[in-house]
Amino acid sequence: MNTPSIVGWSHTPFGRREESLAELVAEVVDAAFEHAGVDPGRVDEIVLSHYNGGLQPLVSTSGLVAQAQPALRHVPAVRVENACASGSAAVHHAVRSVAGGQSLCVLVVGVEKMTDAPAELIGQALLGADLEMAGKSSTSGFAGLFAQIALAYEARYGALGNTLGRIAAKSHANGALNPLAQLRRPLDIDFCATTSEQNPIVAGPLRRTDCSPVSDGAAALVVMAQRQAPRPGQAVRFGGIGRAHDFLDRSRRDPLEFAGAEAAWRGALSTAGLQVDDLDLIELHDCFTIAELQLYEVLGITRRGHGVTALDEGVVYPDGRLPVNPSGGLKSKGHPIGATGVSQHVSAAMQLTGTAGTVQVAGSPRRAGVFNLGGVAVANHASVLEVP
Amino acid sequence: MNTPSIVGWSHTPFGRREESLAELVAEVVDAAFEHAGVDPGRVDEIVLSHYNGGLQPLVSTSGLVAQAQPALRHVPAVRVENACASGSAAVHHAVRSVAGGQSLCVLVVGVEKMTDAPAELIGQALLGADLEMAGKSSTSGFAGLFAQIALAYEARYGALGNTLGRIAAKSHANGALNPLAQLRRPLDIDFCATTSEQNPIVAGPLRRTDCSPVSDGAAALVVMAQRQAPRPGQAVRFGGIGRAHDFLDRSRRDPLEFAGAEAAWRGALSTAGLQVDDLDLIELHDCFTIAELQLYEVLGITRRGHGVTALDEGVVYPDGRLPVNPSGGLKSKGHPIGATGVSQHVSAAMQLTGTAGTVQVAGSPRRAGVFNLGGVAVANHASVLEVP
Repeated sequence: MNTPSIVGWSHTPFGRREESLAELVAEVVDAAFEHAGVDPGRVDEIVLSHYNGGLQPLVSTSGLVAQAQPALRHVPAVRVENACASGSAAVHHAVRSVAGGQSLCVLVVGVEKMTDAPAELIGQALLGADLEMAGKSSTSGFAGLFAQIALAYEARYGALGNTLGRIAAKSHANGALNPLAQLRRPLDIDFCATTSEQNPIVAGPLRRTDCSPVSDGAAALVVMAQRQAPRPGQAVRFGGIGRAHDFLDRSRRDPLEFAGAEAAWRGALSTAGLQVDDLDLIELHDCFTIAELQLYEVLGITRRGHGVTALDEGVVYPDGRLPVNPSGGLKSKGHPIGATGVSQHVSAAMQLTGTAGTVQVAGSPRRAGVFNLGGVAVANHASVLEVP
Repeated sequence: MNTPSIVGWSHTPFGRREESLAELVAEVVDAAFEHAGVDPGRVDEIVLSHYNGGLQPLVSTSGLVAQAQPALRHVPAVRVENACASGSAAVHHAVRSVAGGQSLCVLVVGVEKMTDAPAELIGQALLGADLEMAGKSSTSGFAGLFAQIALAYEARYGALGNTLGRIAAKSHANGALNPLAQLRRPLDIDFCATTSEQNPIVAGPLRRTDCSPVSDGAAALVVMAQRQAPRPGQAVRFGGIGRAHDFLDRSRRDPLEFAGAEAAWRGALSTAGLQVDDLDLIELHDCFTIAELQLYEVLGITRRGHGVTALDEGVVYPDGRLPVNPSGGLKSKGHPIGATGVSQHVSAAMQLTGTAGTVQVAGSPRRAGVFNLGGVAVANHASVLEVP
């Protein structure tokens, strides 16, 4: 059986980087081969994840990978884009190529270079992921869309109180320990849950600390069949993946249902033959703290409307029963759009191989979930990663 | 065996269309299901090809397909982009999914909406496919890059004379017969080979008639295993595909070698167990007439430097031994970037099923080649299509 596995990886620090888009790609390509112990000549397919949306002038970027490594000159390459889930879309392309025996060794690269662009352009580029807001000007950008979810949440389940601040504080505490993270300053619940000059309202109930930052960065991984992993001790196999879309038009669906997200997650778990309680950690898509709260419920960590219990009972903290985003997540590790999904898989693989260093969770985790969404839960990609 | 086949298709007329991007998608989605005789509920994967590069404000367009057909709401979807070869990249994604047993029924949609944008923006968007020119202003746009190839051709092999005009006239003659084509006026060799007010120089030796037009349009096709085709009589199987990249940086390669293009083409032919002479027609990437001339040689229709003999000997005309672009090609059918590769496959499938109507070539063709390139032969995708 061609059980697809991540056999090696690399990850730049996320944040404001001096390096160009091409340089960020080059940095992770070389490092991924070195970590995987794979000769570039073995790669038979390249998948690049890059959102762009006008942030960088080079539109067609699949060729940047071979620019970095001449042995890859004629290897087929393609760019995939699924908004903020582009990275996992690329990973899943590779997983399916290997599972179907169409490729033996796929190099997946995710990259985004955002900080070059002025704030207005960044907001516009990101709104290009939303059917209604694309091309319109907005002072709150994508935060405005997730603010609507927060307001819908409060209307249905009651006031959020300091719940979002508690999630932000958890993310900051985790990110502070991660050398790859962009935001490395621990911020307490009071600071995160209080509007201040340093923590102003961005949109609706969302403060600055509820929002993931604008980031540069790249991550890469190599997918091969498990039995062909050059370094079997670091191979992390895909127990299952799940992919599901939802209507692009938000007006055609319940703002809190996240039905596509739930379908993708269930698909990954059922393929792996697991329940959410069987997992040892999850890296999930916290572009905003409200997204993390929503996903506690959508992924089945808590019942609908009871996301806060995941905090109350300590479940999702690094020392809890099911740590969520020990890496700091998008919120603190950073969110270079095209790199994010690849980064989530790398972060989970590091945990499962006991190589996550200062953010390693205790108890030798063996099963991790990854959940990545694009747009307002339009593109949904979930993975279950396992080690023996 | 899961021999992937095109089991149904659809194709809007190309040209200046009033319809929006979303409406163009909707038009081909409904029509493809109807033609294929496939219930939308059978589709388990959607691949959307869309270049965009700023031509339209909506960046993340994979969700447009399910907008058009609610039964597709949770079907996984992804957008792929490989510059002007995006369409074939999407087709090849589907072929590999079905061949590997990862999907049973894949809907491929290619679309581009270009004519809304001002000329300057169009030029800029297209130059986003070139590493050196991305973000720079240029009066000649992508034509300037292919003009350099024409000049290199003349430097190596001697003056082109009226060769490009002959290719343009062939394209116009073919396109004039195609109800789906954008340019439907036959233009003779003299007109095409002569600089005039109506046919000015665009860049280097390239005149207006050497360049494909700015187009709106969409095409779609359904890929399934041949044995599962609902209407076996119209199923066209993939005998082979080939994919190969080349260096994004043009300075790192010979301008006339097109080594990636040759590798992709050889891959498709060798998988199919065929030689170029076994084919009955080819739809190839004539974004500019010089590209068609180059490809006569790269694809092995003639020896290197002898492309003109394909015209002299009548080989590539509709009544020739190996008709090239009986549809009118990109040059006359039109070149809505993301739709082009899908359109090429649809045009070839129509020929092989004897349903190409006014552009049908004689002799019941059974084997067709498709060649689609992106950038200056950076992304290269080739297919061999066959009917029993």
